[in-house]
Amino acid sequence: MSKFDYQDLVCDIPDYPEPGVIFKDITPLIADPQGFSAVIDELAEHFLGRGITKVVGAEARGFLVGAPVAYRLGAGFVPARKPGKLPREVISQCYALEYGTDEIQIHADALTPDDKVIVIDDLVATGGTAVACAQLVEQAGASVEGFGFALELAYLNPRDVIAETFGQEVFSLIVVD
Amino acid sequence: MSKFDYQDLVCDIPDYPEPGVIFKDITPLIADPQGFSAVIDELAEHFLGRGITKVVGAEARGFLVGAPVAYRLGAGFVPARKPGKLPREVISQCYALEYGTDEIQIHADALTPDDKVIVIDDLVATGGTAVACAQLVEQAGASVEGFGFALELAYLNPRDVIAETFGQEVFSLIVVD
Repeated sequence: MSKFDYQDLVCDIPDYPEPGVIFKDITPLIADPQGFSAVIDELAEHFLGRGITKVVGAEARGFLVGAPVAYRLGAGFVPARKPGKLPREVISQCYALEYGTDEIQIHADALTPDDKVIVIDDLVATGGTAVACAQLVEQAGASVEGFGFALELAYLNPRDVIAETFGQEVFSLIVVD
Repeated sequence: MSKFDYQDLVCDIPDYPEPGVIFKDITPLIADPQGFSAVIDELAEHFLGRGITKVVGAEARGFLVGAPVAYRLGAGFVPARKPGKLPREVISQCYALEYGTDEIQIHADALTPDDKVIVIDDLVATGGTAVACAQLVEQAGASVEGFGFALELAYLNPRDVIAETFGQEVFSLIVVD
């Protein structure tokens, strides 16, 4: 459990982006100086001392948390982006959505086999994006050292999906049951 | 001028995204642990001690630099996003592109009149996005304290545009003449 009480800084938006879904808006947390510091510090401190060299995060909200965590760890940040957004040679990973599939890419030279990588995102729901990011890391020959999220929708069981694929630890600051 | 030699970590992509344009790809700089630390430290240190409470940055690449600068300053980060991306009430600003217009938004409650804000982006070209971000800050009643960029395309004269509108200082680490 977290040292900081983040709950008041996460906004529930009922029926967004579609009826029946409760969207978790973490922008108030990111905009709050103390809350933002606490999120980044707690996520980064969890992975400190493990020789993490790169953080991978998916656009766009994953950048909000992943880039500062990378900075705090003294690591580099590798943006995972939608097709057509990165200007040089890429490697790609498709992943399933509720209906259809999506695709995410990193630059082909963004990681090397020496890199020890964590996947960071603002929120984990089904775990699809996080797994796709980790698969990109493995495609690049680098090693996936763990997963960190500001907020986890535990009722969607992302830990099962991630553990099944990677057997890796998931660290979340706010867990919604 | 900057203490760090960033040039080798910025990639020129000729004819991207269209013929005649040389795209400046800063992802190698963001992925480089030393380069990334230096960019964030230099930008943040420039604005330290001025009581900056919030950093505004435009999606998606602006998040890569703006969010860590906010963290380093102990400030909050306010994402400026394309229409339809923020789930609650927004304020909007249109701005001119070479052909047509674009629009950017922040949450209506993201800033208060007490906030002292800097606008941070990875790159400034014509200055249109940066000015639109600053106009959002003013719409919210907060004060714009300055502008910081990792890379400035000086030949497009963004300083003139920003000075005309705000009379505010522009701080860039890498200046391309």
